[in-house]
Amino acid sequence: MTDALIRRSDLDFLLLDWLGVERLAALAPFAELNRETLTALLDLSDSLAARHFLSHYKAGDQSEPRLDGESVRILPAIHTALKAYAEAGLFGQSFAAEHGGLQLPLTVAAASFAHFLSANIATAAYPMLTVANARLLTRFGSPELIAALALPQIEGRFFGTMCLSEPQAGSSLADITTRAVADGADGLGARYRLAGNKMWISGGDQDASDNICHLVLAKIPGPDGKLVPGTAGISLFAVPKVLVAPGEFAGSRNDVTVAGLNHKMGYRGTANCLLNFGEGRHRPGDAAGAVGYLVGAPGQGLAIMFMMMNEARLQVGLGAAALAYRSHRLSVTYATERAQGRPRGAAADTSPVPIARHADVKRLLLAQKSYAEGALALVLFCFHLADRAEVGQDQAAQALLDLLTPIAKTWSSEWGLVASDIAIQIHGGYGYTRDFDVEQLYRDNRLNPIHEGTTGIQALDFVGRKLVRDKGVAFAALLQQIDATQARAAASPTLVEAGRMLGMARAAVAELVESVVADPAATAALDNATALLSACGHLVVGWMTLDQALTAQERADQLPPELVAGKVAAARYFSAHELPKIPGWLAPLRSAPQLFSELSAEMF
Amino acid sequence: MTDALIRRSDLDFLLLDWLGVERLAALAPFAELNRETLTALLDLSDSLAARHFLSHYKAGDQSEPRLDGESVRILPAIHTALKAYAEAGLFGQSFAAEHGGLQLPLTVAAASFAHFLSANIATAAYPMLTVANARLLTRFGSPELIAALALPQIEGRFFGTMCLSEPQAGSSLADITTRAVADGADGLGARYRLAGNKMWISGGDQDASDNICHLVLAKIPGPDGKLVPGTAGISLFAVPKVLVAPGEFAGSRNDVTVAGLNHKMGYRGTANCLLNFGEGRHRPGDAAGAVGYLVGAPGQGLAIMFMMMNEARLQVGLGAAALAYRSHRLSVTYATERAQGRPRGAAADTSPVPIARHADVKRLLLAQKSYAEGALALVLFCFHLADRAEVGQDQAAQALLDLLTPIAKTWSSEWGLVASDIAIQIHGGYGYTRDFDVEQLYRDNRLNPIHEGTTGIQALDFVGRKLVRDKGVAFAALLQQIDATQARAAASPTLVEAGRMLGMARAAVAELVESVVADPAATAALDNATALLSACGHLVVGWMTLDQALTAQERADQLPPELVAGKVAAARYFSAHELPKIPGWLAPLRSAPQLFSELSAEMF
Repeated sequence: MTDALIRRSDLDFLLLDWLGVERLAALAPFAELNRETLTALLDLSDSLAARHFLSHYKAGDQSEPRLDGESVRILPAIHTALKAYAEAGLFGQSFAAEHGGLQLPLTVAAASFAHFLSANIATAAYPMLTVANARLLTRFGSPELIAALALPQIEGRFFGTMCLSEPQAGSSLADITTRAVADGADGLGARYRLAGNKMWISGGDQDASDNICHLVLAKIPGPDGKLVPGTAGISLFAVPKVLVAPGEFAGSRNDVTVAGLNHKMGYRGTANCLLNFGEGRHRPGDAAGAVGYLVGAPGQGLAIMFMMMNEARLQVGLGAAALAYRSHRLSVTYATERAQGRPRGAAADTSPVPIARHADVKRLLLAQKSYAEGALALVLFCFHLADRAEVGQDQAAQALLDLLTPIAKTWSSEWGLVASDIAIQIHGGYGYTRDFDVEQLYRDNRLNPIHEGTTGIQALDFVGRKLVRDKGVAFAALLQQIDATQARAAASPTLVEAGRMLGMARAAVAELVESVVADPAATAALDNATALLSACGHLVVGWMTLDQALTAQERADQLPPELVAGKVAAARYFSAHELPKIPGWLAPLRSAPQLFSELSAEMF
Repeated sequence: MTDALIRRSDLDFLLLDWLGVERLAALAPFAELNRETLTALLDLSDSLAARHFLSHYKAGDQSEPRLDGESVRILPAIHTALKAYAEAGLFGQSFAAEHGGLQLPLTVAAASFAHFLSANIATAAYPMLTVANARLLTRFGSPELIAALALPQIEGRFFGTMCLSEPQAGSSLADITTRAVADGADGLGARYRLAGNKMWISGGDQDASDNICHLVLAKIPGPDGKLVPGTAGISLFAVPKVLVAPGEFAGSRNDVTVAGLNHKMGYRGTANCLLNFGEGRHRPGDAAGAVGYLVGAPGQGLAIMFMMMNEARLQVGLGAAALAYRSHRLSVTYATERAQGRPRGAAADTSPVPIARHADVKRLLLAQKSYAEGALALVLFCFHLADRAEVGQDQAAQALLDLLTPIAKTWSSEWGLVASDIAIQIHGGYGYTRDFDVEQLYRDNRLNPIHEGTTGIQALDFVGRKLVRDKGVAFAALLQQIDATQARAAASPTLVEAGRMLGMARAAVAELVESVVADPAATAALDNATALLSACGHLVVGWMTLDQALTAQERADQLPPELVAGKVAAARYFSAHELPKIPGWLAPLRSAPQLFSELSAEMF
């Protein structure tokens, strides 16, 4: 066990003591889940991740995917890694047995996957997208589409992508112009011909899988040949790179071509492509247009894609947490090994001490720990809600999950990135060199606040949909859970003050959220949605951090003492250093709602 | 004029309206300074920077310096740029006429240099270090050393370095082990032989200058052959790469060799070397050791180097401000050109609007503006203090400069970096690609909180020396200036609220600083020095931002209306969104002083 990727004692604590995932075994599909299977899976994940993913972390950054004629070539070590991942059956972890899966809870699959993300997020992006693609197909595809395109992905033979953005339509999917024209039907169902350009397609092409299944958003023109404005006109299509049986053109190369590769700041091992659909390079069935099969009903594309997107957003949060986690573990190691300076008052001729003994470095390590472990806890908590909601039919869990998804995506991305930034700072000049991994961890992590919906987009979703449209119902349920934790803190002498600070933060946030929900226009809140999301994110993580510390104290006799002390220190740090930031973020919502509306571009 | 590097209207406002640099002409050396010479210099700087520095911004990142046998080769475009810079006489801007300089104030030289830093900080690092090196020599070197090593740097024929850190001694210079043994004297004064390894030497070798003058910290062994522990034993030596007349070994290659190049996250055009002194590759005078000449008295090395270091710290702040500034200008351009999404309530079939019209993007642009323009104003303010202190013998200016130097270095580095980070976010996926400059601006800027003393080191200097040891005297003088600005704000209907917010921030910070100064141990403050530095930095920039807005309003009839409106918007933004962060940073100084002392490494 390396412990350099995800510390096992922490992961065991989160899964078993804090979330109690073993209780999920009470739900029929998870009946075989127990501590032994969990341990075996995590052991396997840790060892595979270290051996096949971490080993080419730098190589993947240095040898970017390249376009060789029509095909994208990726590093051979990535092929090897993904083959090992497939052979271990890990693509299928969270799928039903009927689809060839291991039938594990999403929570457990996420805990396994965190190791691969921590070791090499760019390589791990391929299975992440493939699993999300296959899950969408298993839910919304016809039995024929599932058999032809989902099952090979669950085996890890085909990989998947999601094709949403276009060069002129990034955050604003309403403006996509890819067209899908009806072209009859065949053994895979209603067939269409697609034409358009898709931007930012991760895994858009590569040479590591037998085939690629693109899930593509496009608009079906009306009888007048025009596209319906807005998101209502968007439909979803499965577009294989090589056409498959029982479709009519099985074996033909589809008309999907790579128009270019994006060269990124980080995440470089993931081939990120501009794809042209239907430009005419290939003509399956000797007709124009890329062949695609409708998934779900016409006009339901965005709604269906958002089911995939919600899981992808949690995966982004998980990736950010995993990168933060490795950044933190590397920092702890460096800070305990690097001797520099002396404690205050020590004589000049005494030996220098490890920098982990200096107050400012301790503060940085503790901040990192609270961000990295906080993000991991937050995201696993959300996957646990997803398991309870989906398999357990728990509507309260679903409502809380809906509320927390933009927080899990954004808080983990924003503060996980800070943890990676702190890692550079702790490593000093060495951290700024490419001889150490931390600058790459930062560059890889920098994508997370951007993809699958930027922080600004998440904030609008959170305030507009999850608070205002929900009329604060889910938020009120969240507050009840926070209050219960605070009440428990009163019994812990070392955490009573942290509980009091959490109560103050809760009161400040709750008061503001209530006023936002009561205001039908909510202009100030929507103008400052990002600030409100920051405040709510810190409240949620502050709550979870305290809740973990209390659980650790309550189970102290079964846990490593350093783990208990560390969780208590993190909770005290978070309450003293982080929660007091909340009133500052909330201030503009009260004082200056109209500050921005008067600004013209020339004034910047 | 490009305005893409530093916006001229803003720079004119800062220099002429806000700082009133023309008044420096009352000091004898600056008698020839006037608006025309200033305009000519800034025009020249803008055009040279755009033509010769900006033009290879990406190339400098992609084609790193490489070690070719014994020599480091850098990009030919860097040679061309530095030759043009030298031919324009810009190395000598701030030097006395007797040394071949243009005798301009440091403030003006900084305003000129900001263009080059903004265009290409890695290339600009060579003249930055050279000028700092030459200034130290002109102040502390003998006439012979000045003639032999400073004047060629002022002409731009030789370049300079500063050699402080060693692999085992980064922040902790007390632990350097480079030895300097007396070796008689020659036409350049007391001669020593140096042996040791120096790490992180920017410009440590390159092929663009005729010679390189290294300023090296080393310890002279005592009679027992041992080095004196601590910083008291440190002396300073001028060590040319090629020995020069009237030294005895003129023309010989000195025993300074490049042991390796550091490969960095950014700032890649600057060759950063591990240098070995006295390893025996060359033997000037057929004896062992690198030949160096003592600068100043033995044991005075660190004190002298700190004069250079203080200027270098302001230069780091200036560099961070300049990178932030370009990040902001690029963001404004992108945000006004990129159409995406619609205003709330607009119909789906209306055209998308530029993202600069969305509230969250306006907030980001305004935050960036306040960081970039705030950092530039702060650093120019400090250079202006330096001119008044040095040439004008103004002791109050010197005291305020000493207080503000760690703030100018740190606040600009930390928040300038945030401005570069925001630039990536505003550019979305495009900003994450290397097709745009913003990810490189971020990577370049990431060095600034590290080099010339990390943020943690600056904070200890600020709290330990500039507040506690000074007994709060300089801080009290700063508060008087803040109060005067606040009083002026009462007369401005649009800024009275910003003045009130500044007053609240001032009260919170002042109360805490007073309690820190009154506490002889000041443990809580030193343990949380970074938080206190953050709070004081935000207070200072909040004050300067409001002060600029008031000056702009008072002179509105002579200024572009967008500039006045922009300065007012920045002041209102800063008071409503930024100053409220201060109480959160101060909270731990009150509540949890002992949080860190109990932590052991295993708990992280």
